[in-house]
Amino acid sequence: MGKRPDHWGWGFQKGRPTRQQVADLGRLAGERLGFEPAEVEDGVPLDAVELPPPRITAPDDLAEIVTDDTVERAGHTYGKAYRDIVRAFRGRYDNPPDLVARPRDEADVERVLAWAGDKHVAVIPYGGGTSVVGGVEARLDDGYAGAVSLDLRALDRVLEVDEVSGAARIQAGVLGPALEDQLRQYDLTLRHFPQSFEFSTLGGWVATRAGGHFATLYTHIDDLVESVRALTPSGWWESRRLPGSGAGPSPDRMLIGSEGILGVITEAWVRVRPRPTYRASATVHFDSFEKGAEAVRVIAQSGLHPSNCRLLDEAEGRLTGVSERPMLVLGFESADHPVDVWMERALEICGRKPTSSGSGAGGDWRSAFLAMPYLRDNLIQLGLVNDTFETAITWDKLGDLREAVRAAVPHATCRFTHVYPDGPAPYFTIVEPARRGFELEQWDELKARASDAVLAAGGTITHHHAVGRDHRPWYDRQRPEAFAQALRAAKTALDPGWILNPGTLISR
Amino acid sequence: MGKRPDHWGWGFQKGRPTRQQVADLGRLAGERLGFEPAEVEDGVPLDAVELPPPRITAPDDLAEIVTDDTVERAGHTYGKAYRDIVRAFRGRYDNPPDLVARPRDEADVERVLAWAGDKHVAVIPYGGGTSVVGGVEARLDDGYAGAVSLDLRALDRVLEVDEVSGAARIQAGVLGPALEDQLRQYDLTLRHFPQSFEFSTLGGWVATRAGGHFATLYTHIDDLVESVRALTPSGWWESRRLPGSGAGPSPDRMLIGSEGILGVITEAWVRVRPRPTYRASATVHFDSFEKGAEAVRVIAQSGLHPSNCRLLDEAEGRLTGVSERPMLVLGFESADHPVDVWMERALEICGRKPTSSGSGAGGDWRSAFLAMPYLRDNLIQLGLVNDTFETAITWDKLGDLREAVRAAVPHATCRFTHVYPDGPAPYFTIVEPARRGFELEQWDELKARASDAVLAAGGTITHHHAVGRDHRPWYDRQRPEAFAQALRAAKTALDPGWILNPGTLISR
Repeated sequence: MGKRPDHWGWGFQKGRPTRQQVADLGRLAGERLGFEPAEVEDGVPLDAVELPPPRITAPDDLAEIVTDDTVERAGHTYGKAYRDIVRAFRGRYDNPPDLVARPRDEADVERVLAWAGDKHVAVIPYGGGTSVVGGVEARLDDGYAGAVSLDLRALDRVLEVDEVSGAARIQAGVLGPALEDQLRQYDLTLRHFPQSFEFSTLGGWVATRAGGHFATLYTHIDDLVESVRALTPSGWWESRRLPGSGAGPSPDRMLIGSEGILGVITEAWVRVRPRPTYRASATVHFDSFEKGAEAVRVIAQSGLHPSNCRLLDEAEGRLTGVSERPMLVLGFESADHPVDVWMERALEICGRKPTSSGSGAGGDWRSAFLAMPYLRDNLIQLGLVNDTFETAITWDKLGDLREAVRAAVPHATCRFTHVYPDGPAPYFTIVEPARRGFELEQWDELKARASDAVLAAGGTITHHHAVGRDHRPWYDRQRPEAFAQALRAAKTALDPGWILNPGTLISR
Repeated sequence: MGKRPDHWGWGFQKGRPTRQQVADLGRLAGERLGFEPAEVEDGVPLDAVELPPPRITAPDDLAEIVTDDTVERAGHTYGKAYRDIVRAFRGRYDNPPDLVARPRDEADVERVLAWAGDKHVAVIPYGGGTSVVGGVEARLDDGYAGAVSLDLRALDRVLEVDEVSGAARIQAGVLGPALEDQLRQYDLTLRHFPQSFEFSTLGGWVATRAGGHFATLYTHIDDLVESVRALTPSGWWESRRLPGSGAGPSPDRMLIGSEGILGVITEAWVRVRPRPTYRASATVHFDSFEKGAEAVRVIAQSGLHPSNCRLLDEAEGRLTGVSERPMLVLGFESADHPVDVWMERALEICGRKPTSSGSGAGGDWRSAFLAMPYLRDNLIQLGLVNDTFETAITWDKLGDLREAVRAAVPHATCRFTHVYPDGPAPYFTIVEPARRGFELEQWDELKARASDAVLAAGGTITHHHAVGRDHRPWYDRQRPEAFAQALRAAKTALDPGWILNPGTLISR
């Protein structure tokens, strides 16, 4: 098994910094944010945690792949939402899964689903466990005999590569780095790098409509999927590999974003590409966020399709320590042709000289970006509430959205993670002193204020963090009621017992 | 009302050529295709057509918008499939709608649906009536009281334009040219030009996942839709205007391609853009189709995103009279920047000098393209069976698909209408002497052979012609069975009486 994943934080136990390092970070964060850092607190160690006893036992034919081990159950209790990490940190495990199953192949998945359907056991598909919206937590209505977390990480192989078409058939449980390692042998890459990349899986990306590396064009996993294979309680769902089709509503688009409620995704054909060999990067500073946003809008509508086009406001720049002014990180990449002409035109649109350019520009921000999930653990130790929320909005409503969010959560920092011709995906970060011991209440209240503001301003409750259980109140207001009826009926047809990830996305 | 649409052919009565013109065309076609053209035959005039009497009558409150007029009923009996035109040509109208309704607004649509639900009348949403797959024909199972064709063409307005985001709210019944005329006032364009553009509607495009103007990138109407509003028998379905979202499976993607079985689309917000001001076009000839296809594959995977990238095989070139060798029509366009660098790189990939270049290159082919639907009518008069079928396939299977189609339908000509990084959308045209009076049997047999070949080779039964009733046997084999269960359940939830376009896409 190698390194053991940390039971409450991001990454592995052995990578966790010392108390002294955390205290040093506290001083730095305090300076940047204007807080007095509180004393460093340690999480409750796992051997001090007691879980409620399992309510179910696995049948003999599943014994080899199912366990009720405490460490496994605790490790599968939560995703990585702020409220998840705080609860694990404080040793609070109210809803652990009763069992954890690790199928070795599709036949194992079939066996687990058959048994669970028979015994009315809830099945929670589990990939990397990086959900930040309560997508893997066994909060169940009455009536279920128990819950099994279905950990798919043993399905971790690239099974087939079609180098001519640029596509690969890949098992759903593979983590980002292992997926890229296997594709590297063919000089190919999926180039889908969500922030969770290190610890999240292909199946998780498909189930949650993950947003990837690219700031424009095909960046949601939706666009990278050529076909999907999933097991529903009523049988297999497998679409044909096609570059495009007009044959009825897209079956794939119904599974993509279904968050485990329709079926367990076991494989997908995805579109891969050669690694980029031509690159251009630049950072540009603006006097105001509004001016930066206007330049980004014109770039997004220009047809230049930058691979990177991330605009940070001054607060985000300060938080990550990369800039005191609004800053745009621009990038182009290609495996086919030099991209300088593209970059020149994008800079011309910005109407100003780049602050830095060349392949290393924006590197500071990239490092900060990847360190953020780790950093969050330490901020919790330091008594700071910290979390992110994100949305997408049409350009005409951006100003009002920003104002509404500022009114609801005054010190939220903002950046654009993705931009479309018709609007950006703004991403907000909050760091504020915690009321220790009352972090959950504080967070719930903060989350509700932010979400209400986003919904009222016309945004989506999530652009790429999914719905899970935590976004339900707002998702339920956002989605068309007739679509909810359709989805509910579809689920009931495929999963009559509602055993698959109940409580996520929709209720009976 | 202006010009009256022709009851059996494409376009308007007054545009129909004389017998002499048709005979001249026959000589030309005969030379190109190596047939002896048969004698020119005329269609049965509309006043010689007798329809079965209507089985239902409209209630008083619908009297203003519903008619049982014979001309209206005949005009709404068929789409524009070859088998439709032949039947109309021969005066055969077995399944006319009993009534035709022309709602003036959404309230009228609500009234028609309420009445139809009450009386168990089938409702067939009708846009431009250009379906080539039996999508608007009232072929009903027993049990329906009758059928009403719901002609939405009075809902023909651009209602709102958001110039900042580049989006417009448009009623579903507007025809292509009227849509573009209204957007022109804002210097904007949808730039979605399916071959049926002149006579098809926005709602029809959305309902059938129409393929548009662009050969690469965002070309399916799917990608141009920002939100949709539709009336289901269980209430309104309206999605939020969003540039992107990760909140559950996309509601829009479930309506897009639903071919009228889930709801009547009344409006959509669509993404519009400025008209292109920079253009580059070129034609390139190849020694073989395979060499041309290989160049197109590399271009499709290059990230250059040409607006036009249509490869014609030698037979297609001869049929349209534009080339004796395989020919690629390449084009780039932009409203933001010159595109010469893009074109230079694309030509470099082709490895050969263009045969012609400049903004007029490929113009011959474009004229031929737009004339094709008109031409088809005349070929029927000349005793020639002629039709098209199309698919999409990954690059690795293209050679086998071409061989399978050649074996099934030896004289089919081929072109690529759209290309994706992972595969092209090949489009086939058949012209062969008809067995007069037995055209339908001949066509059905031809269609079955072609469709069987496409399916067996791994293609989709349709890339942009939709499923309707005519593609059902192959669609039923293509789509995942679990998805069919989900769709059936969704339809039953929204449309418990199955009154909406029954027989299309799926059966109870």
